Amino acid sequence: MSKQCRLAVVGATGAVGREMLSTIAARGFPATSVTALASSRSVGSKVPFGDGDLPVYELTTTAFKDIDLAIFSAGGGTSEQFAPHAVAAGCVVVDNSSAWRMDGRCPLVVPEVNIHALDKHNGIIANPNCSTIQMVLVLKPLHDAVRIRRVVVSTYQAVSGTGQKAIVELETQVRQLFNMQDPETKIYPHRIAFNCLPHIDVFLENGYTKEEMKMTLETIKIMEDPKIAVTATCVRVPVFYGHSESVNVETEKKLTPTQARAILSQAPGVHVYDNPSQNMYPMPLDAAGEDATFVGRIREDETIANGLNMWIVADNIRKGAALNAVQIAEGLLARDLLRVKNKKAFLS
Amino acid sequence: MSKQCRLAVVGATGAVGREMLSTIAARGFPATSVTALASSRSVGSKVPFGDGDLPVYELTTTAFKDIDLAIFSAGGGTSEQFAPHAVAAGCVVVDNSSAWRMDGRCPLVVPEVNIHALDKHNGIIANPNCSTIQMVLVLKPLHDAVRIRRVVVSTYQAVSGTGQKAIVELETQVRQLFNMQDPETKIYPHRIAFNCLPHIDVFLENGYTKEEMKMTLETIKIMEDPKIAVTATCVRVPVFYGHSESVNVETEKKLTPTQARAILSQAPGVHVYDNPSQNMYPMPLDAAGEDATFVGRIREDETIANGLNMWIVADNIRKGAALNAVQIAEGLLARDLLRVKNKKAFLS
Repeated sequence: MSKQCRLAVVGATGAVGREMLSTIAARGFPATSVTALASSRSVGSKVPFGDGDLPVYELTTTAFKDIDLAIFSAGGGTSEQFAPHAVAAGCVVVDNSSAWRMDGRCPLVVPEVNIHALDKHNGIIANPNCSTIQMVLVLKPLHDAVRIRRVVVSTYQAVSGTGQKAIVELETQVRQLFNMQDPETKIYPHRIAFNCLPHIDVFLENGYTKEEMKMTLETIKIMEDPKIAVTATCVRVPVFYGHSESVNVETEKKLTPTQARAILSQAPGVHVYDNPSQNMYPMPLDAAGEDATFVGRIREDETIANGLNMWIVADNIRKGAALNAVQIAEGLLARDLLRVKNKKAFLS
Repeated sequence: MSKQCRLAVVGATGAVGREMLSTIAARGFPATSVTALASSRSVGSKVPFGDGDLPVYELTTTAFKDIDLAIFSAGGGTSEQFAPHAVAAGCVVVDNSSAWRMDGRCPLVVPEVNIHALDKHNGIIANPNCSTIQMVLVLKPLHDAVRIRRVVVSTYQAVSGTGQKAIVELETQVRQLFNMQDPETKIYPHRIAFNCLPHIDVFLENGYTKEEMKMTLETIKIMEDPKIAVTATCVRVPVFYGHSESVNVETEKKLTPTQARAILSQAPGVHVYDNPSQNMYPMPLDAAGEDATFVGRIREDETIANGLNMWIVADNIRKGAALNAVQIAEGLLARDLLRVKNKKAFLS
C-alpha cells in the first residue's frame, strides 16, 4: 500500500470494538496509525492492541481531522451524530450500527457476497446485522445457482450480540440462581439465564421486531434481488458467543443436499460441517473464535418441490461484526477507495 | 365413577414418572389404588405421591395382574417389551414413549384435539411427542378455520425432555464452567451448557432426526389430515424446563393475526399471551409449571399469500408428557373405555 491509512476505531471499549482492535492486529491490517475513540466516560482508560495498549481518546465531531478511515461500533445514535462529521473531515467510515444500512447512499457490504458495492460509496459503508451476514454468506452461492425465492429463518442468538453488559448479565444471573438468589434483570426485559426471549431489538407496528425486519430488508439489499422474500423470528438464547440459525429455503430450481454441499464447499468464508452420523454439525461452542461461517444439517424439505433446510452458525462478534468490518476496510484499500467524493454528503 | 380403576405408573422414578404421580394427585384422578413400577434398580426406593410416598415395585411381565390402567413412561424399549403383557392381563396402557405412536392399532391422542380417537383403542393408547403436543394444540383450531397446508417449525427444547440425567448434566456443566473446570459430557454428544445442539434423538437416512420426523408424522396422525406438510428442525437449548417453537404456517384461506388470536383465545388448553408492546410473549421461564400451552408473537407472514408466524411454549414435562397422559386416562374413564377387547392384540 502506497497510500497513508490512519485508522480510528470508534467505540473501542465495547465488546465489538475490542474484537475489532484484535482483528486489526491479528490480520496485520496496514494502518499507519491506530486511534481508539470512545465516549468521554472511557477517556483515560486503555484498550489492548497487539502486544500493547492504546490510550482511549474522546469521540468528538473534530476527532477525525487526521484520520483516513474510521470503523464505528458505537450504536446507532452515535453513528448518526458523528459519522457525518467524520466524512466532512475527509474520513471514510465503516459503520457497524443499523443507522445507515438502509440509506440509499450507503453500500451494505459482506465482502464475500457484494464487494463491488463498495465502488459507489459516498463516505459511509454500512456493516450488516450479525444475523444477516452469516445467512447471506450461505444463501448467495445457492441463489447464484438456483435462485432463492423464499426464506423462513428462526435464530438462536447469543447475548454477546447485545454487548459486554449482556454477557455480564447472563453470567451474573447464572451465579445468582446457583446461589439461590433472585436473579437481577437489567439489560433484558426478562431473565435470560435458562430461558429463551423471542424479542431482539424493538417491536414494530407489524408485530415483527426491528431485528427480524433487518434480516428481511438487509438480505434483499446485499443480495440485490427484491424477489427474495425473508420472514424471520429472532430469539435470544442463553449462549455467550455464536449465533445459530435454522434456515428453510425455497428455490426456483431444484438443488439436492449433495449439490448444495458441493456449491457451499467452494464458497468463500463458508465451512461445510455436515456429517450427522458422526455427530458433526455446527454449534456455537465450536464457531466461537472462528472466522468462518459454518453450515450443516443440509437436507431436503419434502413439503415443497424445491426446498432445503440447513443450520448456520457463526461467531456473531467476529464475522457477524468485527471481522466483516475489517474485511470491508481491507476491500476499500485493495480497490483504492479510501477517499471521500463529497465531504458534505451526510451533513444535513 | 362406579368402575374400579387400579392404576400403575411405569417408570415412576423418572422425571416424567414423578410428574405423572404429582399430576394424578393434584387432579384427584379417581384411582382406587396407585402402584409405582420401575426397573429392578429402583426397587426398594420410594417416590412422592400426594402427602406421602409410594414404594417402588419391579416392572415384570406379570406385574399387571391386578391393574386396570397403566401409564408408561419408561422408554421405547421397555414399552415394547412390557405393554403387550399389560394388555394381555386386561390392563389398558397409556404409553408416553415413541414405541406405539405410529402403530395403526394405537390411537395417538391429544385430548383437546382428537379425544374421539380413543373410542377405537385396542388396549394401547399412545401419548404424542412433547414438541408435537404443544404444536397441534395451537394448529388444530386454526386448521378447522382455514385449513393448514404447510408448517415450518424450529424448536428450542429443554434438557428435561431427555430426562433427569440431562437436567443434572446441564447443571453440572454450568457449575464446572463457572469453577474453571472442564465440563463433563455424558448424556449429550456435546456440551449443552451455553450451547445449542441441532440434534434430538437419532439421525435417520433422510438427514432428519427421529424427533423431527415425529413432528411431521404425528401431526398428520393426530390432526387426521395427510395433506398437512410439516418440516421441522429440532434443537436442544440450555433451558431446564419448557419447550419453545417458532412456527410458520401456510393456510388455504386467509387468516389475520387478529382472527387467529380470537380463535385461539377460545381453544381449550391454549393461552394467548401476545402483547409485545408490553414485553408480553411466551417464554419457558413462565410456562414451566403451567398446564396451558402459550402462544404469542402472532403476526402475518407477508412472504406468502396466507401465512402466519407464531411462538408456542409449553412445559414439556407437564402438558408435553405427564398431564397429557393423565388427561388421556381421564378420557378413558369418562368415555367408559377402560377395557381390553382382545387381550392378545399386541402379543406377537
